[in-house]
Amino acid sequence: MSITGENFIGSTRSGKGENSFQAFNPAENISMPEKFVYATEAEFEQALTLAHHAFISYKNTSTIQRAEFLEAIADEIMALGESLLERAAAESGLPMGRITGERGRTCGQLKMFALLLRDGWYVDARIDTAQPERTPLPKPDIRRMLIPIGPVAVYGASNFPLAFSTAGGDTASALAAGCPVIVKTHPSHPGTSELVSSAIIKAAQKTQMPEGVFSSLNLADDQSIKLVQHKFIKAVGFTGSRKIGMVLHNATVNRPEPIPIYAEMSAINPVILMEEALKAKGEAIARGLAGSVTMGAGQFCTNPGLVLLIENETGNAFLNQFAGYLSASEPATMLNKNISKSYHKGLELAKSVSGVTVLAQGIKAADNDRNEARPIALTVSAEDFLLNKALSEEVFGPATLLVLVKDVAQLHQVINQLEGQLTATVHAEPADQSNLIPIIDIITQKAGRVIYNSFPTGVEVCHSMHHGGPFPSTTDQRSTSVGTAAIYRFLRPVSYQDIPDEILPEALKNSNPLNILRLVDGSWKNGLIA
Amino acid sequence: MSITGENFIGSTRSGKGENSFQAFNPAENISMPEKFVYATEAEFEQALTLAHHAFISYKNTSTIQRAEFLEAIADEIMALGESLLERAAAESGLPMGRITGERGRTCGQLKMFALLLRDGWYVDARIDTAQPERTPLPKPDIRRMLIPIGPVAVYGASNFPLAFSTAGGDTASALAAGCPVIVKTHPSHPGTSELVSSAIIKAAQKTQMPEGVFSSLNLADDQSIKLVQHKFIKAVGFTGSRKIGMVLHNATVNRPEPIPIYAEMSAINPVILMEEALKAKGEAIARGLAGSVTMGAGQFCTNPGLVLLIENETGNAFLNQFAGYLSASEPATMLNKNISKSYHKGLELAKSVSGVTVLAQGIKAADNDRNEARPIALTVSAEDFLLNKALSEEVFGPATLLVLVKDVAQLHQVINQLEGQLTATVHAEPADQSNLIPIIDIITQKAGRVIYNSFPTGVEVCHSMHHGGPFPSTTDQRSTSVGTAAIYRFLRPVSYQDIPDEILPEALKNSNPLNILRLVDGSWKNGLIA
Repeated sequence: MSITGENFIGSTRSGKGENSFQAFNPAENISMPEKFVYATEAEFEQALTLAHHAFISYKNTSTIQRAEFLEAIADEIMALGESLLERAAAESGLPMGRITGERGRTCGQLKMFALLLRDGWYVDARIDTAQPERTPLPKPDIRRMLIPIGPVAVYGASNFPLAFSTAGGDTASALAAGCPVIVKTHPSHPGTSELVSSAIIKAAQKTQMPEGVFSSLNLADDQSIKLVQHKFIKAVGFTGSRKIGMVLHNATVNRPEPIPIYAEMSAINPVILMEEALKAKGEAIARGLAGSVTMGAGQFCTNPGLVLLIENETGNAFLNQFAGYLSASEPATMLNKNISKSYHKGLELAKSVSGVTVLAQGIKAADNDRNEARPIALTVSAEDFLLNKALSEEVFGPATLLVLVKDVAQLHQVINQLEGQLTATVHAEPADQSNLIPIIDIITQKAGRVIYNSFPTGVEVCHSMHHGGPFPSTTDQRSTSVGTAAIYRFLRPVSYQDIPDEILPEALKNSNPLNILRLVDGSWKNGLIA
Repeated sequence: MSITGENFIGSTRSGKGENSFQAFNPAENISMPEKFVYATEAEFEQALTLAHHAFISYKNTSTIQRAEFLEAIADEIMALGESLLERAAAESGLPMGRITGERGRTCGQLKMFALLLRDGWYVDARIDTAQPERTPLPKPDIRRMLIPIGPVAVYGASNFPLAFSTAGGDTASALAAGCPVIVKTHPSHPGTSELVSSAIIKAAQKTQMPEGVFSSLNLADDQSIKLVQHKFIKAVGFTGSRKIGMVLHNATVNRPEPIPIYAEMSAINPVILMEEALKAKGEAIARGLAGSVTMGAGQFCTNPGLVLLIENETGNAFLNQFAGYLSASEPATMLNKNISKSYHKGLELAKSVSGVTVLAQGIKAADNDRNEARPIALTVSAEDFLLNKALSEEVFGPATLLVLVKDVAQLHQVINQLEGQLTATVHAEPADQSNLIPIIDIITQKAGRVIYNSFPTGVEVCHSMHHGGPFPSTTDQRSTSVGTAAIYRFLRPVSYQDIPDEILPEALKNSNPLNILRLVDGSWKNGLIA
């Protein structure tokens, strides 16, 4: 499979533009040969017009047809074989094992949404039957379900070149919902994106999806903003930095016609270590935490960037244990040069804050420049942490800041001051329980996922996962980017009043041909309406 | 019950400000005596701080406690008796029968949410149990539910001084969700608002809700904007004009921490009259349509402001029938002087557009100024309609524009060009069916509710109602302001990972003490987890 550097305008490869960029291999610190051509204005408009027209028929495809499309995408991604894995590893600096696992997750997500479509209940069907005899006014027949919102713009993340990118969660949930997708390719892995796009296009053709159901575009910065502003785009999914997320957010919500944007941006994912937990299993926590901080060169949105513990003998013993594990950790290549630079800049800034001390550093990188990050743990007192807002900002990479609090009251003070987070974690023992309940109460207000005696990295893909959280972790805490509930991003309700049964969508017909759970006259039930 | 003109800062009446405004009786065309005092900066901050603190405990009240609170509000509203009805009628110009009905609807909504809380399934509980033996990684236990989002600012509507105002849908759904509410009183019915606020406060005290769970503030325009911008406000509900809705929308989404805003603004609610329907029952449609256009002086968000029909013999016969009914309709007092002025201004503008003709006018108002609106029906050709965007703007009042199309193709052209709507209606007979299906397909894209052989006025309050729609009918088409699904406005998901059962919220405990339907390992079920 050769890489052409072109855009996909629907199923057509096209690269008529004059400007281009190259991919970069961070581990080898060299540019890769192919030229990725930015879309021209005409190509851009054409992709959007195709998506707009594709929606007219794609929204009316059956859930089974869309399930087959998603399954075909998974098959075509697997059919790309080693070439995809090698390209993704080269462009991201991530090890082959990790990329292989991520490919499994990506295909697993597609199949999960296919299963959700086959189950069918996600349309949240609600039926209130007519009461023509009601006084003073007859009650009409009202039936409500969720329908697709329209074409979606997807901006993938650098840190998951497969699972949060071209055929990642947002694309899978939008296509599942019945929405055409336009992917803005990520400049950190454009070749990977092209390969995955080709798989999606093949699957669309094999399953006879309408032309324009998927396009992918290489876009310069100004074009990226134009994409969210385009009148044919009806929702936006983004995963990335707070800075770029807010640029897109502001462009989206200030359109003449505002539309939803789901930007997942930054988090420091606090981990609270209760005293009895440290006494009972400090060693295991130290080992686990060091693993979580350094996993994937710390390049996870759920990386534990903040650890809170009480400063006393138990706490100090833990610091020693943790320092030991962290010191033994290896440096690792980061996703790209910018992320590597930002990591070092962020660390310099944090270290320059009054009261911040280096607790431990991982093994130093070799001199040859492989864009490696050296793991690091810093400590600071709660007083200094509270005084310096800069310490609450995410440093993307294998770094964590341990904040030493005097007592439980000060612990409350620190967590009450935190911004919104994707996750918040507590390690505790039953003996901590009286202190634990108010802490869980506070962190539930701060985070989208509350974790007990585990670590935030590793996001389970399932029905009950909420991967989202209060601002600035996301711009819309009502929504998840992982798990089946992500389909709600791209759906909107519609009610049908007194519509004849033969014209109603299948999900709302009396005979319940999809055999789904529905709220009928106030009771949830399967089966038909007599 | 005397009106003091003060604000409710939590349960305390307070009116320390220097500036005030008076209510206005539109039917008598006079100002009412009481002075409503704008909140001072200190009162404003105090109400917000109280709401912020109230949330800490209010979010943890049980569903039963909140159900009792809502039921008590309904009881206290009824206990206000005639004084509430008389005040609301005087301030709104609406007849006593309508106000009495609206009170019933308001109390009915409160009780509907109470029942939803007692049912309990609205938290959308999803549980994926642990699989410690799973390879390569064990599967954690993940449980997700919806929790309240935080204090909510509510801006009620002039046209429903009870059902969409102080204790209206947004307040009811926010309080049901577990969110404290700050109401900005509507200057068109401040006395009604004060009476209803006093009922809410009494109910809060009787059911031992935390101080600050509800406040109501008289706010000048600049303070109204500050309310949505305040850091303690976490969501906004608004019903009113497009102009003010967009001011609040823009202020809300451009906060340093963006939050959801649900602004329901404007719609012209197209009604499409198919040829066979007009042949079979033109007379009944003409009568029903005239009633829908003029009901409540046309002051409904679902008022049918646009009617589409084919220009031919059948169509012309219908125009005559409709003109007959409309000509016989009475003038009626509008809600306030501004709305009355806007109605006349909007009509002048519409009439000045090339090709617009007056089809019929209702009975002329008497000379004494009671702020009355005279019903009117205008006609225009599809060509002229398509050329003049101004004709697509809502004229709030008992007016409608009938657009005469040449054929079904031109009908498609017109409806494809429409902006987003709350509702879209089709009148058809079985013989219209081949033309009907593509039309329903298009209008479903344009509207939140699709109605068959009925009229858009009259919004049923039930589980399956979606009262919302694409922009500009609302700023967030994912959400409804009527029916039980309105509770989702003020909820957000949270996942709990590996949290011990004794600490989990009741909705997620193994024993399922609330006995609610939950998605357990992919299957919806009641009952407990073994």
